[in-house]
Amino acid sequence: MLAKMTNNLVGQPMFRLKKRIRELELEGEEILHFEIGDSPFTPSDTIIKATVDSLLKGETHYTASSGIIELKEAIAKATYKEYDFLPNINQILIMPANAIIDFVVRCVCDKEDEVIIPDPRFPSYASVLAYNGIKESKGITSKTKLWIINSPCNPTGEVLNKKDITNAYDLAVEHNWFLLSDEVYSKMVYGTDHFSPSRFDKCEDRVILLKSFSKIYAMAGFRLGYAIGPEQLIEKMSLLFQTIFSCMPVFIQRAGIQALEEDVQDKIDYYKECRDLIVAGLNEIQGITCKIPKGAFYVFPDIKETGLTDEKFAELMLEVAGVALLPGSNFGKNGEGHVRLCYATTKSVIKKALEKIHLIGERYWYD
Amino acid sequence: MLAKMTNNLVGQPMFRLKKRIRELELEGEEILHFEIGDSPFTPSDTIIKATVDSLLKGETHYTASSGIIELKEAIAKATYKEYDFLPNINQILIMPANAIIDFVVRCVCDKEDEVIIPDPRFPSYASVLAYNGIKESKGITSKTKLWIINSPCNPTGEVLNKKDITNAYDLAVEHNWFLLSDEVYSKMVYGTDHFSPSRFDKCEDRVILLKSFSKIYAMAGFRLGYAIGPEQLIEKMSLLFQTIFSCMPVFIQRAGIQALEEDVQDKIDYYKECRDLIVAGLNEIQGITCKIPKGAFYVFPDIKETGLTDEKFAELMLEVAGVALLPGSNFGKNGEGHVRLCYATTKSVIKKALEKIHLIGERYWYD
Repeated sequence: MLAKMTNNLVGQPMFRLKKRIRELELEGEEILHFEIGDSPFTPSDTIIKATVDSLLKGETHYTASSGIIELKEAIAKATYKEYDFLPNINQILIMPANAIIDFVVRCVCDKEDEVIIPDPRFPSYASVLAYNGIKESKGITSKTKLWIINSPCNPTGEVLNKKDITNAYDLAVEHNWFLLSDEVYSKMVYGTDHFSPSRFDKCEDRVILLKSFSKIYAMAGFRLGYAIGPEQLIEKMSLLFQTIFSCMPVFIQRAGIQALEEDVQDKIDYYKECRDLIVAGLNEIQGITCKIPKGAFYVFPDIKETGLTDEKFAELMLEVAGVALLPGSNFGKNGEGHVRLCYATTKSVIKKALEKIHLIGERYWYD
Repeated sequence: MLAKMTNNLVGQPMFRLKKRIRELELEGEEILHFEIGDSPFTPSDTIIKATVDSLLKGETHYTASSGIIELKEAIAKATYKEYDFLPNINQILIMPANAIIDFVVRCVCDKEDEVIIPDPRFPSYASVLAYNGIKESKGITSKTKLWIINSPCNPTGEVLNKKDITNAYDLAVEHNWFLLSDEVYSKMVYGTDHFSPSRFDKCEDRVILLKSFSKIYAMAGFRLGYAIGPEQLIEKMSLLFQTIFSCMPVFIQRAGIQALEEDVQDKIDYYKECRDLIVAGLNEIQGITCKIPKGAFYVFPDIKETGLTDEKFAELMLEVAGVALLPGSNFGKNGEGHVRLCYATTKSVIKKALEKIHLIGERYWYD
């Protein structure tokens, strides 16, 4: 018999779907991919070269467990550029971004504590709480210890403005909470500014920045990210990381140093074009209403008027139209009646998918 | 305030020591390294080439979270070759080896359960239990749920024989325990056979094999390993891995496929020569008695006759002789009075260190 916690392990919905997609593809079906937050690009040649050079130089040994100093210094510099403060080296821990959620929750929360998470939200927040046996706060309670915010938001693409962020920070100060700010999409904003609560306390007291190389640098397959937070917390997270993983591969960290030098404006411009294309197209389809998201690379259209549940809609799209997307209820109760599409793909794939969704609509729900 | 569990985070002793070593090296001291279980080699050119080719081919995206099928198939084949049984693909999870300890403990044990671990032992076993709030079984109790064995053993180099392993397995069956067999050094045995409990149940019922590419393939910096175990447990561990890490980099998994093709006999022969050199040399030093370990790449000499504690001995060696090694008490109560040296280095470094230890002995403890 396994531990009770295993009953609360649900994994990530996109990986569950991937299995069915593979089956269909093996049967010869053409599937258009909108289900996963990956990039249509590969990392730049200079990023690949930095990785390859490191491998060829023999950087294949253990290294400092919280990250190599050169990458930490590059991160400090990049933080100054993006957020206008210079973190101390001891505030930085280099590790896979997803794991930061688990590590922060484990190092901050005892069993009786509660955590506020958004809804709709990135599913891992809820999963991590579930298998760690920690409750989601419904509103503010005396047990709340941590608040997780995510701007730009996965799955909605919403960007919190300065006032929202300021309010969140003030509440965290008032109640003495930690504030985990998941900003893996911070560079992907379109015609608006991104604001971070890290500017208030420089991650010295309660704000923990969660950053990733996966999205804007097209490095999802490198599994590289970092946390910036209060030294005492980062020290504990580092010990946990050291026990479980020893360290991150040096050659992957070299890729990170190079990535921080890259100009990503072209990619941002490209994603904005994709966003405009898919939003306009979706809004032309009867029964679908899509807001214009200001960040990330997702749209989260409302599909309630089709008369289908989001689960049924997603199933129909995959099985009949060959369009892979995720039901909004995967992202929490408030996600019901919506679906998530990651539009980080080619424009021709977007056009093709819009056409297919339209045709399915004609068959199934158009008046 | 942080979670209570953070009080039980101790990290790994070798990484703590690394900090002091770096300070000394920055001051210009020459340090001879015996403290960490790394390899003096870099991975073979063909392993590096497989990694580089994958990067250049653009294998930089998310992939199946429990591992790519090609590596799983290569692992199944390698398992058949080494252990004489062919695991099902669903019994295999590809992930960093160290993390397997944490994952098995979390997926098998509830808070009230207990785990038997060796003493002396790889420190992570005790650390993982400590921060997960799970007790070490002192002997067999009604709460015992899991037994961790490690042959060849870190830190002693001891290899359990077929009878010992058979007894362990029989006990596990009798009491219905899981048996985690940490075999990261299984290919490093000298003049003896390695026997695994996985041969009894083919990892179908209770045995979990823990394997790593770090040691014999000189791939410590790749952080690649795998678990083979009962399908139901592997499925749960996979979900945990999916939530926390999404997946392993594809280009690192390609290195693993290539590694499993490699002939490692030359390395084994080399390590055996190093072992013979260091054991003979240590036994010539007054106050030091060193058994001949049959596996792994560590010696664990008894230094009690020097009149020094193992902590003091290690400190003296580092600070005065410039020889970095670990005090045996880092490895549990039964490690007291011993020190651990990883002899995976060059023969000239071994000779130099033996000379230095001898000189320190003359100054501090020789009659």
